[in-house]
Amino acid sequence: MSASRIYLDYNASAPLIDAAREAIVAALALAGNPSSVHQEGRAARALVEAARRNVAALVNARPDHVFFTSGATEAASTLLTPHYTMGRAAMRLSRAYVGATEHPCILSGGQFPAEQVCIVPVDADGLLDIVALRTALSVHDKSEGLPLVAVQAANNETGVIQPIADVAAIVKDAGGLLLVDAVQAAGRIPLDITNYGDYLILSSHKIGGPKGVGAIIAHSDLVMPRALIRGGGQEKGHRGGTEALPLIAGFGAAARVAKERLDAGGWPADARDMMEAGIRRIAPDAIIYGAEAPRLPNTTFFSLADMKAETAQIAFDLAGVALSAGSACSSGKVSSSHVLAAMGHEENVGALRVSTASEADAGAVNRFLDVLRTIVERRDRTKVKAADAA
Amino acid sequence: MSASRIYLDYNASAPLIDAAREAIVAALALAGNPSSVHQEGRAARALVEAARRNVAALVNARPDHVFFTSGATEAASTLLTPHYTMGRAAMRLSRAYVGATEHPCILSGGQFPAEQVCIVPVDADGLLDIVALRTALSVHDKSEGLPLVAVQAANNETGVIQPIADVAAIVKDAGGLLLVDAVQAAGRIPLDITNYGDYLILSSHKIGGPKGVGAIIAHSDLVMPRALIRGGGQEKGHRGGTEALPLIAGFGAAARVAKERLDAGGWPADARDMMEAGIRRIAPDAIIYGAEAPRLPNTTFFSLADMKAETAQIAFDLAGVALSAGSACSSGKVSSSHVLAAMGHEENVGALRVSTASEADAGAVNRFLDVLRTIVERRDRTKVKAADAA
Repeated sequence: MSASRIYLDYNASAPLIDAAREAIVAALALAGNPSSVHQEGRAARALVEAARRNVAALVNARPDHVFFTSGATEAASTLLTPHYTMGRAAMRLSRAYVGATEHPCILSGGQFPAEQVCIVPVDADGLLDIVALRTALSVHDKSEGLPLVAVQAANNETGVIQPIADVAAIVKDAGGLLLVDAVQAAGRIPLDITNYGDYLILSSHKIGGPKGVGAIIAHSDLVMPRALIRGGGQEKGHRGGTEALPLIAGFGAAARVAKERLDAGGWPADARDMMEAGIRRIAPDAIIYGAEAPRLPNTTFFSLADMKAETAQIAFDLAGVALSAGSACSSGKVSSSHVLAAMGHEENVGALRVSTASEADAGAVNRFLDVLRTIVERRDRTKVKAADAA
Repeated sequence: MSASRIYLDYNASAPLIDAAREAIVAALALAGNPSSVHQEGRAARALVEAARRNVAALVNARPDHVFFTSGATEAASTLLTPHYTMGRAAMRLSRAYVGATEHPCILSGGQFPAEQVCIVPVDADGLLDIVALRTALSVHDKSEGLPLVAVQAANNETGVIQPIADVAAIVKDAGGLLLVDAVQAAGRIPLDITNYGDYLILSSHKIGGPKGVGAIIAHSDLVMPRALIRGGGQEKGHRGGTEALPLIAGFGAAARVAKERLDAGGWPADARDMMEAGIRRIAPDAIIYGAEAPRLPNTTFFSLADMKAETAQIAFDLAGVALSAGSACSSGKVSSSHVLAAMGHEENVGALRVSTASEADAGAVNRFLDVLRTIVERRDRTKVKAADAA
């Protein structure tokens, strides 16, 4: 390897930030179980509650409406259920309406039987078809139960940002509940649960916290899903199991730093724009997906003509640049992108995802572009040879 | 506080051991998602698989039969379901048979409707009523589905060790599946899944690893419960969500150390026996629960006549000794022990649980006994005064 490695796969997992590492290491020194009433238990409890306040603040929620989980996938599996309660009364949801480009943990419909999951299409830019959603909800039969709508704030592959406030208004009109997957948007764009429906789900390791912790954040805790994991009554009965103290502490620290950054003016798209200008210059035939839609400031998803994404990904990896072909989910499996398929792209070479840190890092971008140039030149030489041979 | 604090609440949560802390800190430096195919992803994957081998070795299982979860509660909620698969075929379990002294996460019956949960009684020493179990299974109607039996290897409050090999033989005869809650037994007594039925559940933070991670360990992965948390296909589709890398690494290290210790001859009951001799000397009216049954070498559960356990627990806490009144589950809630009720004790003062580290620590035991003596003397003075006044 000619130089140190460049990590451009923040949407798969972001490196831990220093404040989170320090919070984790401090929490590791606490022996107590947060449910114990002795001094050690109370110290552990205080740490959990401090983290809860920081996570709440990131999305303008009330701390007592934050419920820690083992990650966003558990949060999604918990919320995607027909079984809710309003106070003590059972409440039934009869159908889930999910965007076509949602993360697999949402798209699967969770605990809903497959026949009760309705896929809402997106347009060529990846934006949710608002008219289709409104139409679907207008014919929803509420006598069987309320509708549950699940839409991501931003897509993990393309970075496309959905018009959540519009979606929230439609869902509210229809008397439904809205679940917003804010995993990739959190910390990158401002989020406010008061505009965003009923539930947000977050993942710590996408915002610089540790892997293995996430949260359900409710606008109100009056209407809540039946607990998926039942045990000793932790998280007010909504999520059993001893709290993952060190991870929760790290998540809280990462949320605090993310909030401070957003309050200080947020995250410019300079690195992304510089990268995309470079891609277009080096490979004028490249397609950048969702380019016409609002997108996260850190994500670029693109295809190179006649160049398999997996092949390019391996070449980047060997050259010291970590990025991904599609999303990272599911062990080493490389398959075609359901996101591009939903956007109507007849994708036959796959696509590369570059997702950067919060800070615009011109050095990393230039290094990426240097490797891209080498890969594209090699492709073009191969094409010329093939043409000569023909 | 006159001296440093003494922590005697290992069954609630054990302090992190050094090897686990080191493994966690090392894992925190890895940015990659274990599902990513680039170098960073492969390094993360290698760490997960090394931990899997260590956890498997602790219970003599195959590494590919270890499935990481966010803790034992999630593991219990996953296994306690009517919905299993054998390969690709659906398989139905129609009833759960659970011991009366099980942990709340088992006793609740998980995903089984309440009417499909059958409680198997225990005797006055807390040992499962084997005859009752055999009788219940003999009338189980297999045409509706197989029976699922859930029994703990050792109780969290009393430390009483169940005759799991006998239970396993009965369940096998009945054609059922056996779930063994090995949370408190792991690392304290040898466990071998080949004698212990179909599934074990473990919790990292009870063996000196971090809070927030546990495992389902299957004797074979042919018959498995339907995934509770569905996402990107991690853990071979049995448990979705990005792996909690630092916690899994810490869990692996704790399992390795626990195994080494057991291989070196295990864990003597010296500290417990010394403590119980002291309790009987100081308070001859004390009742030590399960004293006639095989018990863990680290756990003592006892009542003092005319002394509320909560009051004594607070007095111990103020004197620098952390122990618990009952188990730690569920936030600060103090309620009567379902374990003692199941054992037929008309418990009206509650009970105190002392649970120690693996090493016999005479200093800690003596400190505990000194505080106990003060508390008992105070109780006796109060009694004398009350008698004088009458």
